[in-house]
Amino acid sequence: MIHWVKWLEWAFGVFAVAAIWYSVHNFKSIKKILVGRPLRTAELKSQHTKLVWLIALPILSADLYSSVSYGPESGLTELASLGEDAKWLIIPITLATIFLLGILILSYIMGILAYPNGGGAYAIAKDNFKTKWPALIASSALLIDYILTVAVSISAAMEAIVSAYPNVEPYETLLAIGCVLLLVLINLRGVAESARVLAWPTIGFIICMLFIIGTGFIDGFKEGFTKSTTPSIGIIPEGLSTLLLLKAFSSACSALTGIETISNSVPVFRAPQKKNAIKTYIALGIITSITLIGFSFHLFINGISVKPHNTMLSQLTGLYFGNGLIYQVIIWFTFIVLILAANSTFNGFSQLGAIVAADGFLPRALLHRGDRLGYSNGIIVLAACASLLIIGFKAHTNALIPLYAIGVFLSFSIAQFGLIHRWLKVKGTHWHWKLAINTVGAIITTAVAIIFSITKFSGGAWIVLVILPIFVLCSLAIHRHYEEIVVELKLEPGIVPVARKVLSIVLISGVHQVVNHTLSFAKGLNGDVIAVYIGFDDEAIHEMEERWSEWGSPCRLVCLKSKYRSLIEPLARLIKVLEEKQEERMIHILIPQFIPVKWWHNLLHNHSALVLRVWFLQHKDIAVTTVPYHLKK
Amino acid sequence: MIHWVKWLEWAFGVFAVAAIWYSVHNFKSIKKILVGRPLRTAELKSQHTKLVWLIALPILSADLYSSVSYGPESGLTELASLGEDAKWLIIPITLATIFLLGILILSYIMGILAYPNGGGAYAIAKDNFKTKWPALIASSALLIDYILTVAVSISAAMEAIVSAYPNVEPYETLLAIGCVLLLVLINLRGVAESARVLAWPTIGFIICMLFIIGTGFIDGFKEGFTKSTTPSIGIIPEGLSTLLLLKAFSSACSALTGIETISNSVPVFRAPQKKNAIKTYIALGIITSITLIGFSFHLFINGISVKPHNTMLSQLTGLYFGNGLIYQVIIWFTFIVLILAANSTFNGFSQLGAIVAADGFLPRALLHRGDRLGYSNGIIVLAACASLLIIGFKAHTNALIPLYAIGVFLSFSIAQFGLIHRWLKVKGTHWHWKLAINTVGAIITTAVAIIFSITKFSGGAWIVLVILPIFVLCSLAIHRHYEEIVVELKLEPGIVPVARKVLSIVLISGVHQVVNHTLSFAKGLNGDVIAVYIGFDDEAIHEMEERWSEWGSPCRLVCLKSKYRSLIEPLARLIKVLEEKQEERMIHILIPQFIPVKWWHNLLHNHSALVLRVWFLQHKDIAVTTVPYHLKK
Repeated sequence: MIHWVKWLEWAFGVFAVAAIWYSVHNFKSIKKILVGRPLRTAELKSQHTKLVWLIALPILSADLYSSVSYGPESGLTELASLGEDAKWLIIPITLATIFLLGILILSYIMGILAYPNGGGAYAIAKDNFKTKWPALIASSALLIDYILTVAVSISAAMEAIVSAYPNVEPYETLLAIGCVLLLVLINLRGVAESARVLAWPTIGFIICMLFIIGTGFIDGFKEGFTKSTTPSIGIIPEGLSTLLLLKAFSSACSALTGIETISNSVPVFRAPQKKNAIKTYIALGIITSITLIGFSFHLFINGISVKPHNTMLSQLTGLYFGNGLIYQVIIWFTFIVLILAANSTFNGFSQLGAIVAADGFLPRALLHRGDRLGYSNGIIVLAACASLLIIGFKAHTNALIPLYAIGVFLSFSIAQFGLIHRWLKVKGTHWHWKLAINTVGAIITTAVAIIFSITKFSGGAWIVLVILPIFVLCSLAIHRHYEEIVVELKLEPGIVPVARKVLSIVLISGVHQVVNHTLSFAKGLNGDVIAVYIGFDDEAIHEMEERWSEWGSPCRLVCLKSKYRSLIEPLARLIKVLEEKQEERMIHILIPQFIPVKWWHNLLHNHSALVLRVWFLQHKDIAVTTVPYHLKK
Repeated sequence: MIHWVKWLEWAFGVFAVAAIWYSVHNFKSIKKILVGRPLRTAELKSQHTKLVWLIALPILSADLYSSVSYGPESGLTELASLGEDAKWLIIPITLATIFLLGILILSYIMGILAYPNGGGAYAIAKDNFKTKWPALIASSALLIDYILTVAVSISAAMEAIVSAYPNVEPYETLLAIGCVLLLVLINLRGVAESARVLAWPTIGFIICMLFIIGTGFIDGFKEGFTKSTTPSIGIIPEGLSTLLLLKAFSSACSALTGIETISNSVPVFRAPQKKNAIKTYIALGIITSITLIGFSFHLFINGISVKPHNTMLSQLTGLYFGNGLIYQVIIWFTFIVLILAANSTFNGFSQLGAIVAADGFLPRALLHRGDRLGYSNGIIVLAACASLLIIGFKAHTNALIPLYAIGVFLSFSIAQFGLIHRWLKVKGTHWHWKLAINTVGAIITTAVAIIFSITKFSGGAWIVLVILPIFVLCSLAIHRHYEEIVVELKLEPGIVPVARKVLSIVLISGVHQVVNHTLSFAKGLNGDVIAVYIGFDDEAIHEMEERWSEWGSPCRLVCLKSKYRSLIEPLARLIKVLEEKQEERMIHILIPQFIPVKWWHNLLHNHSALVLRVWFLQHKDIAVTTVPYHLKK
C-alpha cells in the first residue's frame, strides 16, 4: 500500500502542478470556479484599505510567529544527541536567539526609516551598491529561502496533524502536497481582499502559546516545577563541542525567519505609517521573545524529548491538558498558522520574483499577472519547487532545517551593509546611531550566516551554497540576454517596411479538401505558388503526379524523393536552390493542417507539420503559415 | 542512499526515454553516433540473407528457450508454499507443460503450412473472421504480452546477476532500466545485419543448460541421486487444492512464451522454407523439453528452495560447480540470453504495431521508420511501458509472472480458431488431420487461458484483463476516426482551388526590427494590412500611437485595450467584427517572432505567440503565419 502511496505522491506532485498550470491558462469555466472572476488591472490599486497596527500585527506575523512551533524543537533535538545533561543548554541558546531577534528588529526599524515605501534586501542593495552582485545575491538567497519556508512550514503543519492522528503518518507527504496545491489555488484567487480574516488564526495561536506557558508557570508555582526527575543545570555534558553548540543555535534560529515581512509591507499601515510599523515590530518582538523563552523553559523543565511522529509542542500540550478538546484546539491552530505562514510566503516570493524580473534578471514570464492579479507564474514555480523539496525530504521538518535560514541571514547581512553605505552617504538625523545599530547588526548577521554555513554544511546546507551562485550566474546571463536584444532590435532612424516579393510553397500530402483549402488561400496572396510533394518511393511520386493532372494541375507541382524518409532534408535542399536563384524574394511555406474536434485525435496524426514548422523557423529565414481545416467530426 | 537511488530510477526512466526520443528525432550528430548512418528505404529488402535452419534455430529461439531459466522456478515457488512434501509435484507439472509445448508446436506447424509468408495470430484472425474483434483482441493481447516479456526477461536477467553479485541488489531496478535503454539504442540501430552474431549466446546457453543437466545425471548415477534428505514422492501434501496446483502450472507455463517467433519468421529461412521451419520447430521442441524436465528433476532432487536474491538456477549451478569460473560463465550466458529474449521482443512488438497501424487500428506514428529502418516509435513506446512495469514491480520476476502469458495464450487460442475456420473453408490435403490438431490445440489453449485468468486473477492478472478491453475499444475508436477523416476529406469532382481575398493582421508589441521585418513581408502579400497593438492600460496605448506616427504610420494601426490582461479576448472580438463585416475575405494573422541563438533563451520570452497560434488555429478559420527574425546573439 505504501508503495502505491509513493506513486500517488509523484503523480500528484508532478501532474497536478502541470494540470493546474494548464487549466488555469486554458479553461475558462474551470478557471472561473476555482480562481474566480477575472479582475481588471485598474482594481489593483483600490484593493488595499489601510490597516490599524493591532490588526496588521497578526496579519503580518504568521511567518515569524509560527516558527516558534519548530525553532526551539529543532535546537533541542540537536542537544538531545548528547543526552539529558545537555538539555539545559536550550535556555542560554534561546536567550541568544532572543538577543539576535532584538538586533534584527532594531536593524529592520532602521530599514523602515530609510525606505518607508517598503524596501526589501534587494531594493536596499540595488539602491546602495554600484555593482549588481549584492542585490542579486540578496534576491536569489531570499527566493531560495522562500521556497524552503513553504516546504518547512507545511511539513511542520503536517507533523502537528500527525502528532494528533498518528495513523495519518503514511500519507504525510501526500497531504503536504495537497496543502501546497490548496495554497496555489488560494493565491491564484488572490488573498488581499480577505486579509482581515487572516488575522484571527494567528491571534488564536498567540493566545494558545501564551496559555500553555501561563498554565505551566501557574502549575509550577503551585506544585513545584520539577515533577519527575530533577533536571541538571550548569553541568557541562560529556562530548559537548563548540560546533555542536553552534549547530543547536543555528537550528533554533530557524524560529527567526519571516522577520522581514513587516518592513516589506509598510504601505499597508494606516498613517502615521512609519510609527505604526515600528510599534508593530516592537510588540511582535516582545511577544515572540516571551513565547520563545517560555516555551523552551517548559520543554526543558518537563523533560520533553525527541519522539518520532509527535512534536514537542504536542507532547507538552498533552502533558498539561491531556488529549481532549484543548489539545485539539491547540493542534489545529498550530496547523492553520503554519499554513498561513506558507501562504504569506507565496505573496512574498511572487512579488520579489516580479520585482527582479522587471529589472531583467529573471524571465519576464514572472511579471505576468493572472486573472485575479496575482503573479501566477511565480506562484506556480514556488509551488513546484516546494513540492519537490517536500517529496525529496519526505515532509520531515528536521531534515529540511539544515538548508533553511542561510538565505535569510545572507540577505539580512546584505541589507545591513546597504544601510551602512546609505547612512555614510545620506547622513540625516541621528545618523551616527543608525550607523552604529546597522554596523552591529551587519557584523552579527554575517557571523550568524557564516556559522550556519559551517555547522549545517554537511547536513544539507551545501545544497543551498551550490545552488545560490548558479542562481546568481543565471540571473546575470538572463540580464545580459535581455540587454543584447534591446540593442539588436533597435530601429535605426529612416528604416521603414518595404514590400518584399514573396514565393509561396504549399506542402501537400495528396489531393483532398485540406489541400484545396490551403491552395485557395495561397492563390489569394499573390501569383507565385508552388505545390511540393515529398514521396518515399517512385510509385508514390508517380501516383501523385497522375492525381495532380487529373485534378487539372491547379499550380506547378514539384515532387521530391526522400530516400531516407526525412521530410526536412529534401525541402531544405529545394529551399537552398530557390534562395540562390532569387535572392530578393522571401520564401513562405504553407502547411495545411486539419484540426480534429476531439483533443485526443491529435495523437493520431503524424506531427510532421509541427516538426517542419519548428525546424524551418529555427534554421531558415522563412515565414511559415499554418492553414487550418476544421473537421466536423 | 537507497532513497537517492529511487530518485535516480525515476529520473532515469522518465527523462531518458524523453531525452532519447528528443535526441533521436532532433540531433543529427548524436543520432549518427548512437544510431548509425541513415539507411535508404531501398536497403530494406536487400538486408536479409536467408538462414540455414541450424543457425536459425538459436537466433529465433532466444525468447522461448531463455524462459526455462524462470519457468520451472516460478512453478516451484508456488509449490514451496505448501512445504517440502509438495515439491515432487513439479515433475508432473513440468510433464504437463511439455505436453502443452508439443500441442503448441504442432498447432504452429499447421500455421506455417497455412501461412508460409509468416502469419501471426493477428493475420490469421484477420484472414479468417468476418468481424474485426478476434484480430484486434489477438493483436492487443500480444502487444501487452510483448511489453511483459521485456519486463520479465530483463528482471530475470538482473536477478541472475544479483545471484552472483549480491551487493548489486540495491541497484537492480536502476540497472534493469539501463538494459532497457541499451536495447532501445540497439534496436534503433537495427539488428538484422548482425543477426548471425546473435546465434552464439543462445547456443552457449543451451550448452550450459545441457551441461548442468548432464553433470547432474552423471553425478547421480555415480553417487546416488539423493545426497541429503530423501525427497518424498507421491505424498499428497496437506492443504493442496486444485487451485494451487493449477496456479503452479500457470506459473510454470511462463516457460512457453516466445513460441510464436519461428512461425512469424518463415521468410528468413533458406529454401525449402516450410520444411526447414518445421524442422527447426521440432528440434527446438525436443531441446526445450529435455531442458525443462531435466532442470525440474534436478531442482527437485537436490531440494533447491526459494531463496531471496539467489535464483534456483544459480543455486543449482553453485551446488554442482561451486562459485568458480563455470558458475560465472553460466550466469553470464543466462544474463545475455535473457537480454536477447527482450531484444527479439522489440522486433516483434514494433513490427506487429506497424502492421496493426497500417490497418488503421493504432496511431499512424507507429508506421514511422527511423533512420535505420526500425519502427522507432514502436521501439520507444515498448521501452517506456516496460520501464514503467519494471519500476512499478521493482524488477521482481515473480511479481510480474501473474500478469504474464495470459495474452500469449489468448492469441494462441484465437489463431487456432482462425485456422479451424480456414480448414473448414479451404480444405486441401490432409485437412482432416490439420483440423483435428488445431481443434485439440484450440480447446487446450483456451482452457489454459481460462485457467491462467482464474488462478492468477488476484495476483495481478486482473490488470491485464482490465487493460485489454480498453485497448481493444481504443483501437476501434482510432479506426473509426481514421475512416471518418477519409470520407470527410474527399474532394467532390469539379472542386478546384479558387483564389480568396485575404486580410492580413500583423500583431505588434512595439516599434522595432522584428516588427519592421514582419511588416515588409505582409506588405508583399497584398494591399490590405492592419497592425494591431494590445495594451493593458491607456498610457501604453497612447505611447504606442505616438511611436507609430513618429515612425510614419507604415499601415493602419488598431490599438485594443485589454482590461483583463488577456491577449486572446480583445483579438477574438476584433476578428468577430471583421468576419461579420466582410464574409468573403479570409483573415490571416501574422505573428512576429524572434528566434534566439541559444535554446535556453526561449525560456526567457513570453510565449504569447505560441498560445495565440494554438488558440486561433483551434477556434477560428484563420491562417496563422509566424515570421521569424533570427537574432545574431
